[in-house]
Amino acid sequence: MTQQLRIVLVNTSHPGNIGAAARAMKTMGLAELVLVAPKSFPSAKASELAAGADDVLYHARVVDDLATAVADCQLVIGASARCREIALPTLAPRQLAAEFSTLPSNARLAIVFGRESTGLSNSELSHCQRQLVIPSHPSYQSLNLAAAVQVVSYECYLARQAKVAEPVASDELATAADVARFHTHLQRVLTRINFYQPDTSKFLMPRLQRLFNRRYLEVTEVNILRGILTAVEKQVK
Amino acid sequence: MTQQLRIVLVNTSHPGNIGAAARAMKTMGLAELVLVAPKSFPSAKASELAAGADDVLYHARVVDDLATAVADCQLVIGASARCREIALPTLAPRQLAAEFSTLPSNARLAIVFGRESTGLSNSELSHCQRQLVIPSHPSYQSLNLAAAVQVVSYECYLARQAKVAEPVASDELATAADVARFHTHLQRVLTRINFYQPDTSKFLMPRLQRLFNRRYLEVTEVNILRGILTAVEKQVK
Repeated sequence: MTQQLRIVLVNTSHPGNIGAAARAMKTMGLAELVLVAPKSFPSAKASELAAGADDVLYHARVVDDLATAVADCQLVIGASARCREIALPTLAPRQLAAEFSTLPSNARLAIVFGRESTGLSNSELSHCQRQLVIPSHPSYQSLNLAAAVQVVSYECYLARQAKVAEPVASDELATAADVARFHTHLQRVLTRINFYQPDTSKFLMPRLQRLFNRRYLEVTEVNILRGILTAVEKQVK
Repeated sequence: MTQQLRIVLVNTSHPGNIGAAARAMKTMGLAELVLVAPKSFPSAKASELAAGADDVLYHARVVDDLATAVADCQLVIGASARCREIALPTLAPRQLAAEFSTLPSNARLAIVFGRESTGLSNSELSHCQRQLVIPSHPSYQSLNLAAAVQVVSYECYLARQAKVAEPVASDELATAADVARFHTHLQRVLTRINFYQPDTSKFLMPRLQRLFNRRYLEVTEVNILRGILTAVEKQVK
């Protein structure tokens, strides 16, 4: 759980969206939620939609105005799809996440989401240093509030994870020699069952090799395939 | 709007989630929604939460089972957080998006989301070539269904936006239905040659499915594989 990223929801109309936003946050390791003048909170609907993230709701702070909500933050970013007369510098969630991942450990970032219907006012945006714009299809750009929180939280989580990610080992992989032995075995059996004739089916073996070469084969898989070939040989002897 | 990416929701309990998923899709330029045995649909709650994406709901197709939902798709990916005895190769939303952005223009991708409570069953996952895992914080990994659809649709939208070249058509690709027929044929032959016994070799067929599902199969390849099976059948009769 990071204490460095705060989600601020301004004047939210539907308590269900507050609960769903809390859930979205917690799935991505975020815990700090501040609500600016919510229409209805606490609320059974919020708790219901928070599901297992009711602790985020329980610790949410309710304040009267945006200035109070972000007072102790070093970087304040307002999420807004609307064009403004005086535009702030914009950034996308992935750029924001990159900033977050390199945030000094003593700095605190707030991401501010406006009301469902009309977003953030110009006066609210004036508390923000940048404007976050979530890419969306021109034909319909209206992300649900909690869905927007999910996308942004997800990007921030990934960016933080990327700094510590370890490569994961797969199951034991077959060597080129294992695979070559399998190809020889396959050709022998296909000849035995009269499926392969060297003179007429020139492309068959290369095609099959390409098929089985397309991805790493595991040792177990080669063993199964050769087991099948042996079973066929027993039947046709 | 892309016609190449289909969202499939299996056995969804809450119609609100169907509506919210439709909204999430439309914000990212997706239009094709297939519902497998939804608990309640159509529903006023779904329409309410779809907001301006009610056209996605209106055109949603309702089917009885997952096989039908994905029959004409070349790549089927199941979203699931649960660990399985026989793991499919996993990929993250960003990797999936990269695949989507280079999908041959004649191929169709389905992303399958399970029920809210229990996700996808093992039998449903067996229709999938890969498993999509959305990164999430270990302390709470339960993304809301529509939130998961939002994250995945967002990644796919970004990847398509970023791509420079038009996808090119490959050789004709086998559909899920083609591949399913091959699997049935394979199981019949393996039984016939005493390689497969349903009681004792529980993991054999899932393992073989995983092997052949790892990459797009071409129609020609499926024809060759089935030709081999037929040749074996002739020999052992």
